[in-house]
Amino acid sequence: MKQVRIGLVGTGYIGRCHAIAYAQAPTVFPLDAELVLEYLAEVTPELAEKKAKEFGFKRFTGDWRDIVQDPNVDVVDICTPNFLHKDIALAAIANGKHVYSEKPLALTAADAKLMYEAAKKAGVKTLVGFNYIKNPTTQLAREIIAKGEIGEVIHFYGTHNEDYLANENTPLDWHCVKEKAGLGTLGDLAAHIVQMSQYLLGQEIRAVIGDMQTVTQTRPNPNNLQERLTVENEDQASALVRFANGCMGTIETSRIACGRKMGLSYVITGTKGTISYTQERMAELKLYLHDEDPARQGFKTILTGPLHPDYKHFCVSAGHGIGFNDQKTVEIRDLVNALVSSENTLYPDFEEGYKVSRVLDAIALSCEQKRWIDVEEVA
Amino acid sequence: MKQVRIGLVGTGYIGRCHAIAYAQAPTVFPLDAELVLEYLAEVTPELAEKKAKEFGFKRFTGDWRDIVQDPNVDVVDICTPNFLHKDIALAAIANGKHVYSEKPLALTAADAKLMYEAAKKAGVKTLVGFNYIKNPTTQLAREIIAKGEIGEVIHFYGTHNEDYLANENTPLDWHCVKEKAGLGTLGDLAAHIVQMSQYLLGQEIRAVIGDMQTVTQTRPNPNNLQERLTVENEDQASALVRFANGCMGTIETSRIACGRKMGLSYVITGTKGTISYTQERMAELKLYLHDEDPARQGFKTILTGPLHPDYKHFCVSAGHGIGFNDQKTVEIRDLVNALVSSENTLYPDFEEGYKVSRVLDAIALSCEQKRWIDVEEVA
Amino acid sequence: MKQVRIGLVGTGYIGRCHAIAYAQAPTVFPLDAELVLEYLAEVTPELAEKKAKEFGFKRFTGDWRDIVQDPNVDVVDICTPNFLHKDIALAAIANGKHVYSEKPLALTAADAKLMYEAAKKAGVKTLVGFNYIKNPTTQLAREIIAKGEIGEVIHFYGTHNEDYLANENTPLDWHCVKEKAGLGTLGDLAAHIVQMSQYLLGQEIRAVIGDMQTVTQTRPNPNNLQERLTVENEDQASALVRFANGCMGTIETSRIACGRKMGLSYVITGTKGTISYTQERMAELKLYLHDEDPARQGFKTILTGPLHPDYKHFCVSAGHGIGFNDQKTVEIRDLVNALVSSENTLYPDFEEGYKVSRVLDAIALSCEQKRWIDVEEVA
Amino acid sequence: MKQVRIGLVGTGYIGRCHAIAYAQAPTVFPLDAELVLEYLAEVTPELAEKKAKEFGFKRFTGDWRDIVQDPNVDVVDICTPNFLHKDIALAAIANGKHVYSEKPLALTAADAKLMYEAAKKAGVKTLVGFNYIKNPTTQLAREIIAKGEIGEVIHFYGTHNEDYLANENTPLDWHCVKEKAGLGTLGDLAAHIVQMSQYLLGQEIRAVIGDMQTVTQTRPNPNNLQERLTVENEDQASALVRFANGCMGTIETSRIACGRKMGLSYVITGTKGTISYTQERMAELKLYLHDEDPARQGFKTILTGPLHPDYKHFCVSAGHGIGFNDQKTVEIRDLVNALVSSENTLYPDFEEGYKVSRVLDAIALSCEQKRWIDVEEVA
Repeated sequence: MKQVRIGLVGTGYIGRCHAIAYAQAPTVFPLDAELVLEYLAEVTPELAEKKAKEFGFKRFTGDWRDIVQDPNVDVVDICTPNFLHKDIALAAIANGKHVYSEKPLALTAADAKLMYEAAKKAGVKTLVGFNYIKNPTTQLAREIIAKGEIGEVIHFYGTHNEDYLANENTPLDWHCVKEKAGLGTLGDLAAHIVQMSQYLLGQEIRAVIGDMQTVTQTRPNPNNLQERLTVENEDQASALVRFANGCMGTIETSRIACGRKMGLSYVITGTKGTISYTQERMAELKLYLHDEDPARQGFKTILTGPLHPDYKHFCVSAGHGIGFNDQKTVEIRDLVNALVSSENTLYPDFEEGYKVSRVLDAIALSCEQKRWIDVEEVA
Repeated sequence: MKQVRIGLVGTGYIGRCHAIAYAQAPTVFPLDAELVLEYLAEVTPELAEKKAKEFGFKRFTGDWRDIVQDPNVDVVDICTPNFLHKDIALAAIANGKHVYSEKPLALTAADAKLMYEAAKKAGVKTLVGFNYIKNPTTQLAREIIAKGEIGEVIHFYGTHNEDYLANENTPLDWHCVKEKAGLGTLGDLAAHIVQMSQYLLGQEIRAVIGDMQTVTQTRPNPNNLQERLTVENEDQASALVRFANGCMGTIETSRIACGRKMGLSYVITGTKGTISYTQERMAELKLYLHDEDPARQGFKTILTGPLHPDYKHFCVSAGHGIGFNDQKTVEIRDLVNALVSSENTLYPDFEEGYKVSRVLDAIALSCEQKRWIDVEEVA
Repeated sequence: MKQVRIGLVGTGYIGRCHAIAYAQAPTVFPLDAELVLEYLAEVTPELAEKKAKEFGFKRFTGDWRDIVQDPNVDVVDICTPNFLHKDIALAAIANGKHVYSEKPLALTAADAKLMYEAAKKAGVKTLVGFNYIKNPTTQLAREIIAKGEIGEVIHFYGTHNEDYLANENTPLDWHCVKEKAGLGTLGDLAAHIVQMSQYLLGQEIRAVIGDMQTVTQTRPNPNNLQERLTVENEDQASALVRFANGCMGTIETSRIACGRKMGLSYVITGTKGTISYTQERMAELKLYLHDEDPARQGFKTILTGPLHPDYKHFCVSAGHGIGFNDQKTVEIRDLVNALVSSENTLYPDFEEGYKVSRVLDAIALSCEQKRWIDVEEVA
Repeated sequence: MKQVRIGLVGTGYIGRCHAIAYAQAPTVFPLDAELVLEYLAEVTPELAEKKAKEFGFKRFTGDWRDIVQDPNVDVVDICTPNFLHKDIALAAIANGKHVYSEKPLALTAADAKLMYEAAKKAGVKTLVGFNYIKNPTTQLAREIIAKGEIGEVIHFYGTHNEDYLANENTPLDWHCVKEKAGLGTLGDLAAHIVQMSQYLLGQEIRAVIGDMQTVTQTRPNPNNLQERLTVENEDQASALVRFANGCMGTIETSRIACGRKMGLSYVITGTKGTISYTQERMAELKLYLHDEDPARQGFKTILTGPLHPDYKHFCVSAGHGIGFNDQKTVEIRDLVNALVSSENTLYPDFEEGYKVSRVLDAIALSCEQKRWIDVEEVA
């Protein structure tokens, strides 16, 4: 049996999620290859050693450069802060490694394009960690749309709102600094809903007009709470969009939306029905079909179960629920199987990651220039 | 005790709602005047007679002109199709009558301005039937915002979506004809959410950029179903807006939104909390307060009750529910009491009706010109 | 056109609800007779005069005995506290009046039986004010069950929980005194859900075993808050029941159920589907059908609308909502039309009121004797 | 570092769940011992080999007897059909092994008592797989109750309803056969809600009166669908209960409740508040507090997050959700840490498993004898 040997860079929030998914994936799914937790990098050898032990990796290093050139690593998994994605990915690609990067792919669409083109040229396989589309519930939504069950889609409304910066006295961190994060909530959160919209509709966003605001313009310096530093990117943004087929859409995002803990949501209206979903109830899809008996019409709450994509690998009873890390486990399954396949079926890959960045940059540009922007104007 | 004598023009959908509200208002509320159902007009004397009997009006006529000049009528209540509002209102004003008109006030902001200015000059009192703001639940939302309980409002998301034209083979009616209806779903539905946003925030909308579509471009001729006629106005529209104080907002509207039967809804985000509401659950307000114990935070579902505005007049027990016509009954109470008051406390009056029309026209213009429009550019 | 002349006794909570319903009924519905608000009684002539004016009644009196023998009264409407129902009803019946009584019909099943038998012997028509079954949504539930859409009903779960006495320091009132109220929450609240279960299933309850508790055993004397008086009846009760056809059921009731403002609810399970409802969302019925595509199954939320029983008289658009008093308005329509009909179609009449009292007494007896009680053992 | 070496017997539905939990537990939690997947048994060596590979176990066998006496096994994990629990557990205990058994502990309370007493005498540690109480959301409910936030608990309503046998033509399987399953839905499903009620209230159930039915009395023979075999145990059951402190409760269970996929739910009423939960929304707890401002009262929806028990190990962001297998992962953490601890903190252990069986048997007996049963009358 073939092997897929992982080189993980970064073990924070999302790195830990990857580790849990790596741990359970071989038991949950019949994988096409043996998954080997080969090498792990952190900022110091000490932290790397601790995490390698915790996550079950064989070797560790305090320098990610060791990993990108290690002959026993097949794929470099990038879980670092955003600003490092580019350098690590380009180095990995230069060494012929496949690359699995967290989102957003890069700080700008221009950088994302470089990365996508480098990977394409090198012939390596890529994957971007937009894991929410791997949720069986959202896969079901995709299936319902693709089969035409709600007719032709005529409107998409999507949000990714959270409230992690709702308190104006939460100290400034890298998310608020341009050179570390790039965009604000657009890059951190809206990346998901933009990508998800394209996945669900099977259509790219072509034109956008947005509006944005930095509501909390200064935050305490984490190293000196008496001092306040400038927040360099947006707290909230909204955009009207048009998909390639002319379908209208609206995207909203905020990192200061009081009460939203995981407010990734969509309402998709078709000519024959409507789908509605929120990630806070990740095992429920609401479906309305207009052609039913008019006296019995209504939104139906479907609880995800074994008849829906990928669910049965976690549990064979409906409505028992899958969790946050399970989505990443589906992603890992996709990664492993694709890396040992003769075909490249990985999605969403760096090309998609670049296209998402382009939409986000276009929204930011449209806010600045106060006009509709054709996405192709960017990068 | 003083009297308020009503002259009702039009007895269709909303005219019937007025009639029910007139019938119950004196029992529900202690009114400051005796409500007299004086005179009723319909398109034929026969229909007018039938409806006068049904609604309990003393006299009837087949010509609305009789009503606007009748000495025993104090207020002309206009429940006709939209295109007639202007002529009837101007005639009533010319005769010194107070005017109570259904929304939208007119087919265009320019017409609405004429009406507002005429009323102002004549010194008559006016009211526009935006009855949904009279719901105790939405009054409660207003109170929570006004008291600062959710801090400063930083985002408004509102919709008025329905599906009455979702079926592409529903025959064309006057709503789809420009000279009868003016705008499409913007005028028919969005008028409510635009007005409601201004009521709730206590702020006017100042700038807009919108997008719209006529998804179903032809519909069967009701008189010859084989033939299809052109739909002349929009089926769906979305707009980004800015309120006077800089607050961002998004407004969406559709008359083809499968599954939405009364999709008038809002999500209002403040710096300290969030409010969420949908008219389909008109007795529930969801409220999140960010300053609560972080381990016990969550959206609370408040069931409207006697401690909230106006509810106790319908029932003294909480959670027992008020209905569609009850909102209009509150409106009638406001009308009657204001007409016999020395002060003019009527809201929303023709000035507000005009301002709403101006926003709607600005959205339509922004769609056409694909640019941000300052509302003051219009009319 | 015939007339139905009302003699109203009692103008408190529910009397006011009747008054509002009388006011709007002729406008809402095409009634088969003219509704005349003839005579009103309260405990003093002064209060009666005030209320007659407020409610639009022609005459008033400080003694209900005047009404039961008045030649111009066709039906006596009893809205007094429970303990007076019997005397007034018997006197009215003795005078050949039709009787419309609020629930519970009497303090005991024995009394209710007297009343039912007297009415039957006198040949007068009767109605008991179980108004919640007149809600279009619950009428829809009845229709779905009767048509067999959820197969054979195999389980009924129903509650009527409120929290009006949840605070242990709410002073004692007549609800807590046996000779004024009879049973506690069973009589006050469970009467509704017991009757509703029989209406919905079309089956009588035949056997019961219950359990009950007076959780707050003393309450402040309203006239001397330092003193605490004994609460004489139950705060909460639960019962297992069997319907005539063998169907299992569970009934729960509480007047101290924190958070329940109008917790009248039911979940009805059939062999092919399930219905679920709560009065706090009185315009929504949840329906699950087991024979649908297994990958698209789920509870559907039906918003009541004009295609459902009686709704269209209030509004012709679905999902716009009807309110608490509207249910009573449907009841008034039933009353008026039945009184001028040659047939007696009134439901629920005194026979049903008696049968409900018998079930409630049987539950109380089963709690006391700690054994299953056949309902026919009672009264 | 110490080791905990697992001997797993059974790899079906719940055995697979254990395997996934074993796989992820060391990454999710800092465990106090090294978890070793030592030995696995299935009904044939071939199946055992396949599953050992799939689940990552070192050794395998076709005979569970090999495991209970293996010197390298510390704990025997029993995931077989119910009727085998007893023999395997007793054999394991006889060999001095700790035992981790799935629920229900045995087919009868008498058997469960034997097992509990054997374990106690042998001094081995035990755990029963009531994993739903390990959900952070239900742990939070326990915490809220224990801290007195809802006052004194006065009523418990709990269900475990599913619909896996709702279709009358689903063939008979072991769940319907007395000698394989013991009780029907009481043993299979109600075991969870009975145990959960005792966990949440910190009180044992002392007295019960129940009612039950086998609605579908015959089912197709799986080996000959033309023939129908007798269903030997109950499809649905309900019981009134009293906890040790006098608190009233109602328990309902069904395996034919159309639409319930994971209908494990509870509503817990206290003197100062109410908690409500359903496993179908396993990341949400509804909480009502009666002492809040009366005009702002309502049920609050708390999304489980890192401030609640155990959640942070899965994800540090609130509202991101944990899944079915994550509950078992918490249980595994409890098992591993307790086995290497000097104290025995395992809960729920065989004593609790026995007490739950006793309640279930008491309910069945009360149905048969149609009377209240004191739980101590049983076994």
